[in-house]
Amino acid sequence: MRLSNQQRILSNLVSSGPTTQADIARNTGLSAATVSNIVKVLVDRGLVSTTPTTSSGRRAQLVSLSSNDGAVSVGVDFGRRHVRIVVATLDYRVIAEKAVEIPLGYTAAEALDIAANLLASTLGQAGVKRSSVLGVGVGVPGPIDRRTGTVVKGAILPEWVGVTVAMVEESFELPVYLENDANLGALAEATWGPHAGTPTVVFVKVGTGIGAGLIINGAPYSGNIGLTGEIGHTPIHEHGLLCRCGNRGCLETVASTTIMIELLSRTLDRPVRTSDIVRLVLDGDERAIRVVEEAGFAVGRSIASIANLVNPHTIIVGGPLTDLGDVLLSPIRDGLVRYAVPMIVETTELVMSSLGERAEALGGASLVLQQPGIHTTVA
Amino acid sequence: MRLSNQQRILSNLVSSGPTTQADIARNTGLSAATVSNIVKVLVDRGLVSTTPTTSSGRRAQLVSLSSNDGAVSVGVDFGRRHVRIVVATLDYRVIAEKAVEIPLGYTAAEALDIAANLLASTLGQAGVKRSSVLGVGVGVPGPIDRRTGTVVKGAILPEWVGVTVAMVEESFELPVYLENDANLGALAEATWGPHAGTPTVVFVKVGTGIGAGLIINGAPYSGNIGLTGEIGHTPIHEHGLLCRCGNRGCLETVASTTIMIELLSRTLDRPVRTSDIVRLVLDGDERAIRVVEEAGFAVGRSIASIANLVNPHTIIVGGPLTDLGDVLLSPIRDGLVRYAVPMIVETTELVMSSLGERAEALGGASLVLQQPGIHTTVA
Repeated sequence: MRLSNQQRILSNLVSSGPTTQADIARNTGLSAATVSNIVKVLVDRGLVSTTPTTSSGRRAQLVSLSSNDGAVSVGVDFGRRHVRIVVATLDYRVIAEKAVEIPLGYTAAEALDIAANLLASTLGQAGVKRSSVLGVGVGVPGPIDRRTGTVVKGAILPEWVGVTVAMVEESFELPVYLENDANLGALAEATWGPHAGTPTVVFVKVGTGIGAGLIINGAPYSGNIGLTGEIGHTPIHEHGLLCRCGNRGCLETVASTTIMIELLSRTLDRPVRTSDIVRLVLDGDERAIRVVEEAGFAVGRSIASIANLVNPHTIIVGGPLTDLGDVLLSPIRDGLVRYAVPMIVETTELVMSSLGERAEALGGASLVLQQPGIHTTVA
Repeated sequence: MRLSNQQRILSNLVSSGPTTQADIARNTGLSAATVSNIVKVLVDRGLVSTTPTTSSGRRAQLVSLSSNDGAVSVGVDFGRRHVRIVVATLDYRVIAEKAVEIPLGYTAAEALDIAANLLASTLGQAGVKRSSVLGVGVGVPGPIDRRTGTVVKGAILPEWVGVTVAMVEESFELPVYLENDANLGALAEATWGPHAGTPTVVFVKVGTGIGAGLIINGAPYSGNIGLTGEIGHTPIHEHGLLCRCGNRGCLETVASTTIMIELLSRTLDRPVRTSDIVRLVLDGDERAIRVVEEAGFAVGRSIASIANLVNPHTIIVGGPLTDLGDVLLSPIRDGLVRYAVPMIVETTELVMSSLGERAEALGGASLVLQQPGIHTTVA
């Protein structure tokens, strides 16, 4: 099922109130069969209920939003030096959003404390009761072992390794759904952005680390144990830098913001931050442009391998460098064109995320609304 | 839906005759809901029909195989120098199988003629009427553009580029379903082999070319336009041999049987064929072992990238070298261990195909049985 159709139906119910399935079909332009299928899913999730009625003398099903009046979903994204929170309604409207910096080198417990306080103040200012929160979708910069709900090795921030869903729930005192940040980015793009409803989407996050999230046949894809999109250690240069994984020349040693910062700090002989990379490039600094171009080409080469394997409709580049626009996207496209099968290049859309740094937190809010049986976790 | 459950139900009907849904559930160990769902799918495909009945005084649904008594599915696999045909019943029993060599450098038209004759003689000897053939699943060594049903560039055998479903149907005078050979290998493994029912399977065919077929969430995966699993041009050596695709050091320049044959023919100063590679290695020829080991490690490195991206349950290596067993599989595993995320290595099964050179033709037969509405194409 494509997410956008679900959103269209929920939006219609929010704006029009209880509506028959036939009217929903008319209002949304969806087929009666599609509406019926999606309504079944939404009933199973407790987001809507149906009651028999008559319409023009015929039997019909009246669809109503569940008694979760004012129910919201919360998305939380933990980055290397920030935490961001969004609060969204069932029809995907953001009603509150906050981000704060957190100190470099924080522990997971400290970050959870900061986030819990930020969550309380955000809900308070928005006038949302805690009991109205259906759940919190939390993005962390590392893979989640789906068998145990635990952050496992591979995390950019080693502080997060071993963190479990239960620990985050204890901190937030709310139902929590934990997910890798790149997967949330993919989900956000397939839910909130202009790519909503695209069947197969690859979201590549270029940041401190490099990871991909996959939407396959319209649904988030999690593979065997949940460790998907681990593209940061694709070999790029046989004799390249030694990577923290023990191999040489991995994509992350060429194209992460970590290596860009290291290269530019050395050359400029002063500390450089991620935001400085963007500023330097936009100011025309040739060293920064060179670093970004080389990184982009390597990312494009890895994206080519992904495109050759899964032949997606759309590839979206996200992360803290999206403001670079074509300066980053052009070399990525060059790498794609060089290494992908020509017919795949011709038929694959490659774009920069329009959600920017908000993508992961927005994806967190989507994650909550996608949970089967979400209603069982709220009073 | 997992393929194996469908097979279990069809097998049960073949062996037991018309059976109620409740009895099918008892006989197969599947839940009533699962049986009901699968029967619905099979009814849609015209493979079974249901009639109301009573059982122990309660209303029940009697499920019968459709009037396609003796209906069969045919799989055809075209290789570089062979064509193989299998004829299978609805419950996945092979009732006839033939393979013939075809001359190197054949045209697609010549190969289709040979296959059409082989098909006629195979059906004749097996006593199968042409009207009993539900369809022919045909594997070709190249990508199929799903928008047009045409073999497109990238084919190992350039003779096949431009061939369409309609051309093959004209030759066979039967409904035809065209598919890339590696995709058929994957389908065969998820249908016929010990891996039937595994949700996510990657089948990697190491042959004249190198390609992968994907089963994702239990179903063959075809991406945007059908060009999936094109892993033969993954860059391996920055300064390696020039590849026919225009890049350097692609996987196919390191690990295809084509390059193995070229290397060994030069060293041994006599023409070497694929079957000779196997014989030389099993005889302990150190040059042949070296070539296979280097190829295997490169294949393993590419498989690592696939595993890191899609986190499959099982990776299966197929193609004409499967008789090499561990001589090929060990270096592939070494490459996987070196380049994949450790937790993915630990949880991913890597095995050699047990279907050998039959995989693609068997997958062709499966492809026919999976078509929705297959009954509409037969009298």
